[in-house]
Amino acid sequence: MAGSPRRASGRRLQLPMLCLLLQGATAILFAVFVRYDDETDAALWHGGNHSKADNEFYFRYPSFQDVHTMVFVGFGFLMAFLQRYSFSSVGFTFLLAAFALQWSTLVQGFLHCLHGSHIRVGVKSMINADFCAGAVLISLGAVLGKTGPAQLLLMALLEVTLFGINEFVLLYYLGVKDAGGSMTIHTFGAYFGLVLSRVLYRPRLEKSKHRQGSIYHSDLFAMIGTIFLWIFWPSFNSAPTALGDGQHRTVLNTYYSLTASTLSTFALSSLVGDNGRLDMVHVQNAALAGGVVVGTSSEMMLTPFGALAAGFLAGTVSTLGFKFFTPILESKFKVQDTCGIHNLHGMPGVLGALLGALVAWLATHDVYGDGLHSVFPLIAEGQRSATSQAVYQLFGLFVTLTFASVGGACGGLLLKLPFLDAPPDSQCYDDQVYWEVPGEHEDEAQGPLRQEEPDTQA
Amino acid sequence: MAGSPRRASGRRLQLPMLCLLLQGATAILFAVFVRYDDETDAALWHGGNHSKADNEFYFRYPSFQDVHTMVFVGFGFLMAFLQRYSFSSVGFTFLLAAFALQWSTLVQGFLHCLHGSHIRVGVKSMINADFCAGAVLISLGAVLGKTGPAQLLLMALLEVTLFGINEFVLLYYLGVKDAGGSMTIHTFGAYFGLVLSRVLYRPRLEKSKHRQGSIYHSDLFAMIGTIFLWIFWPSFNSAPTALGDGQHRTVLNTYYSLTASTLSTFALSSLVGDNGRLDMVHVQNAALAGGVVVGTSSEMMLTPFGALAAGFLAGTVSTLGFKFFTPILESKFKVQDTCGIHNLHGMPGVLGALLGALVAWLATHDVYGDGLHSVFPLIAEGQRSATSQAVYQLFGLFVTLTFASVGGACGGLLLKLPFLDAPPDSQCYDDQVYWEVPGEHEDEAQGPLRQEEPDTQA
Amino acid sequence: MAGSPRRASGRRLQLPMLCLLLQGATAILFAVFVRYDDETDAALWHGGNHSKADNEFYFRYPSFQDVHTMVFVGFGFLMAFLQRYSFSSVGFTFLLAAFALQWSTLVQGFLHCLHGSHIRVGVKSMINADFCAGAVLISLGAVLGKTGPAQLLLMALLEVTLFGINEFVLLYYLGVKDAGGSMTIHTFGAYFGLVLSRVLYRPRLEKSKHRQGSIYHSDLFAMIGTIFLWIFWPSFNSAPTALGDGQHRTVLNTYYSLTASTLSTFALSSLVGDNGRLDMVHVQNAALAGGVVVGTSSEMMLTPFGALAAGFLAGTVSTLGFKFFTPILESKFKVQDTCGIHNLHGMPGVLGALLGALVAWLATHDVYGDGLHSVFPLIAEGQRSATSQAVYQLFGLFVTLTFASVGGACGGLLLKLPFLDAPPDSQCYDDQVYWEVPGEHEDEAQGPLRQEEPDTQA
Repeated sequence: MAGSPRRASGRRLQLPMLCLLLQGATAILFAVFVRYDDETDAALWHGGNHSKADNEFYFRYPSFQDVHTMVFVGFGFLMAFLQRYSFSSVGFTFLLAAFALQWSTLVQGFLHCLHGSHIRVGVKSMINADFCAGAVLISLGAVLGKTGPAQLLLMALLEVTLFGINEFVLLYYLGVKDAGGSMTIHTFGAYFGLVLSRVLYRPRLEKSKHRQGSIYHSDLFAMIGTIFLWIFWPSFNSAPTALGDGQHRTVLNTYYSLTASTLSTFALSSLVGDNGRLDMVHVQNAALAGGVVVGTSSEMMLTPFGALAAGFLAGTVSTLGFKFFTPILESKFKVQDTCGIHNLHGMPGVLGALLGALVAWLATHDVYGDGLHSVFPLIAEGQRSATSQAVYQLFGLFVTLTFASVGGACGGLLLKLPFLDAPPDSQCYDDQVYWEVPGEHEDEAQGPLRQEEPDTQA
Repeated sequence: MAGSPRRASGRRLQLPMLCLLLQGATAILFAVFVRYDDETDAALWHGGNHSKADNEFYFRYPSFQDVHTMVFVGFGFLMAFLQRYSFSSVGFTFLLAAFALQWSTLVQGFLHCLHGSHIRVGVKSMINADFCAGAVLISLGAVLGKTGPAQLLLMALLEVTLFGINEFVLLYYLGVKDAGGSMTIHTFGAYFGLVLSRVLYRPRLEKSKHRQGSIYHSDLFAMIGTIFLWIFWPSFNSAPTALGDGQHRTVLNTYYSLTASTLSTFALSSLVGDNGRLDMVHVQNAALAGGVVVGTSSEMMLTPFGALAAGFLAGTVSTLGFKFFTPILESKFKVQDTCGIHNLHGMPGVLGALLGALVAWLATHDVYGDGLHSVFPLIAEGQRSATSQAVYQLFGLFVTLTFASVGGACGGLLLKLPFLDAPPDSQCYDDQVYWEVPGEHEDEAQGPLRQEEPDTQA
Repeated sequence: MAGSPRRASGRRLQLPMLCLLLQGATAILFAVFVRYDDETDAALWHGGNHSKADNEFYFRYPSFQDVHTMVFVGFGFLMAFLQRYSFSSVGFTFLLAAFALQWSTLVQGFLHCLHGSHIRVGVKSMINADFCAGAVLISLGAVLGKTGPAQLLLMALLEVTLFGINEFVLLYYLGVKDAGGSMTIHTFGAYFGLVLSRVLYRPRLEKSKHRQGSIYHSDLFAMIGTIFLWIFWPSFNSAPTALGDGQHRTVLNTYYSLTASTLSTFALSSLVGDNGRLDMVHVQNAALAGGVVVGTSSEMMLTPFGALAAGFLAGTVSTLGFKFFTPILESKFKVQDTCGIHNLHGMPGVLGALLGALVAWLATHDVYGDGLHSVFPLIAEGQRSATSQAVYQLFGLFVTLTFASVGGACGGLLLKLPFLDAPPDSQCYDDQVYWEVPGEHEDEAQGPLRQEEPDTQA
């Protein structure tokens, strides 16, 4: 049932060998390059003259844990809506993110944190690594169900690298602000994944169409993901911002933006729904768009009203995207977007970048006071005007879209390498290709693997 | 299946229009009135002379996140026990709470936080808004399955307003202590919801009786809600208390109270159960009563023993309430209480208010030392004796019950307005009225909407 | 169906009576002995000269909440993988842990925290109580499905006591370091449970074999447990360490170790799987071994590379244990280990103890600087050499194994007392013995209790 013996034998070794190879490589690089930073190293910390309370751990760790929850619980369960692919959704999220944390520690470390010849790690590098894992999981949403785990690990290998470079260009070369990653995480992850999915286009995917929907319980598992993403998104956007008012304001803006995207999602979902009925897909996804859309601007003086307006717009655009644009994306643009990441991360990410440019353009010393230095150091130091900061923000979006598109295309070609195991068109969205799967009900649980007959209940 | 075309068409527009209207109104009010407070505003914060570590964000945000988790994950999944109403339980919780956060920011802001002409927001107002949303969700528990989302939004509109007024009267006029909200949240939310449910009494609800129970998996989803409520309840009660020993003590008392209510719930559930069997309804709900019952007193010098005793009593009363009182409540008092909020929030809330009065009455300068000023400022300043504080506490309970009952009655009349869409008696507890619902099992997932025939498996 | 009337009547009273008896006893002991500590007592705290920010609450509570989540959500849902025993898994976890928190407060308090004639409680004692509950839940994993709740409460009564004594011997008499409990929690809990399960060996357990596996949805519920354990394990290992660099480093080491155990688990699971397929049992459990294996050493200067290597080894050993050793454990050693705790806690715990001894042996003043005093105070003060510390660490492992084995044997004999209600061989892993169980599907939910006929769907 799961392919010819040769394929099976190839699959049998591809995933373990790749895991072992990648783990071996990162371990060696860790041994050579990675060291504790000043706040995690016993000798370095005690050599300084600190109070224990000064350790940045106490300012960042609670936010980090929320981000960590979002990456592993949030993304993992959000993608578990597929009726027969929940093991893979949760499991591959787990595998990809675990690898991405290691690999992005190295990539980001080489680019940002190289002190002398060593990468210094601590809670800040952990947050950055989790952010990068988030981008990989966004891309996973586009190709979920149509790619094998070995392919996905290769995708992560490439995407983490490009993510690090893109982020470095934006934050360090261009001086762009993007704390919550509207550009670096959401836009990058979305368009990387969408272009990659375009390259992997499967014209005969309707063979697996009957497994592409949800069932009642799988939608509830997905809601676990949604709600954890929703409640912790304020921590996501604020995790890397300046301490004090910066984190506080970012949290507040994100909190209000999400309430507004929730209201607009329910409104629009009912409005466009058959007979006024709400659609779980919208609630699971579009209600989160308020977090994406303020990723860049929530650390700025967006104002609570600005947060509501942005969230409302994002929920609206995202819901309409699911209803009207996703079908076109597949039929016209040949992009098969399993989880609708274009609606949750793509469009709201781009909107968020534009909003960030707008709010940067409006920045004045009056509004920010001495806090201008924390939010826009280049404007505060007189190196840039607010207008030029806004232009840099826009240029950052352009750079991100370029990196994402070129990277996604390369990724697609990489994943098409013929020796890589991919599920056939008729076995997409099916856990049985990669997992030992017990029955859905008790009386099947002891039997052999579930058969492909249409009605297992009869 | 879901009503006549005219009803369907009315429903089609009621929810989206109301969402848009409410969101529009709150957005305008936010634009006019809501501003960052001293700790979230860049200019105000940097104008002060603070260390970054002084920002209240670092003392309150971890607790806030736990409260936020309780509101959205805890309440949402706790109510997902209904076999065919889990989408609505989780989804309407999401919608109502999102709206309540916005609206209570405004209502509470006008009452408590008006500085000059502006409402100042930060982590404290976020905690207060989440608390108010909690009260709304308690009331939701009484009417769950018997009301449409547009009705529920109107209920929230009214309840949030009255919640804010009642809280203001208690905390500011009467000088009542109620950090964890035994009165302001649990008693208020419960009796508001119960009276409202009384007004909406449906004599022919047995037509939907077959959907009122749980199934195996829905009980497990509900346990997700229970456990998250249980573990984070210490953060709930302590979120708004004085910093330092106040938060620390509140957490400790709540922690022990909950362990005792869990033990008494298991004991009583087995004792009154058929053949000694435990009942999931009790475990899901009554085990939490220990958090409710110390809502008022946990910031006081309750003593660890006092916490155990209170929790034990609450678990006992709550379990016995589910077994013996809920049936009477429906048959004699015509109150249909879907989730048994009278047992989890009503009786334990009133007990908690009484316990708070008792512990206040016992307050002495010897026991509290200089900490008396944090817990009972009016006693410390000599404006009140402990006895008079206790009397005020009791009066606060009376005021709360009055506000809740009158408010619930008004709410019931409001929700009975004939043009508001409510599910017919035969379609209560049924997600299909409001949601696109996939099948329960794979072989149904692609079919049309599930039919109403009693046996969909055959 | 569930036994003769006499048994049923015995069961009817055993659980409630034991709950009430234990709760009564702990309440009396609390009244006599337990008092707030200096940081939770209003008078004591305000008598001191502190800033509010000095309260240890703000340094430990976020970690505590993560640990609390792991104990109740993590362990509870991880064990919910059994198809017909999920109520018991989540529910008995809830009951046992709630009791263990109270009882271990007393036991640990008498041993560690007795100041004058009182036990002083605060956030540190809460963390220690949760740790002890964790050990009890590990043991529960070995006997899950084969023991009744009254038996389990007696097991907890004994195990908590021995846990406290063993921990006291290790930490205070032997000066052993074991912050994350590789020895005191994982090794102790695992071998206590395994020896206990050996004593309770059921030669005819195959009568319940058909209920021993998972079904699709129960595996997803289990993944909720796995992921929450995985994400919060850094908080577990770091919760009781020295503040500042100590907590920070412990978190970092645990984080990397877990990523490596995840990669090695996926690699090995696929490698030994039928046709390269992954096994959910491995992913649910072995991926967590990286947290166990650095329980002792993560507060030390393990280095990030060391963390990766340790995690990789633990994931490998644990996965191979599930595949090859668990069957032998049952067939040769007559140990029926329901959840495979030998693979997740036993072997990785012992490995973690050995690793801790190794890293202690390598400790030098050069590497730790002045931080040596925090991690190895006896070495810093010149009372011990690093080598002798390592020997003490090994001796701690030996003591733990002895306490666990003797304790588990005594526990087994205690639980075999003939008047204690245990499920018959044919009704193991069956919620119906202890719970009112609704149907699995809607059309059953209203019927009488599910019958024992093999096929309930037909």
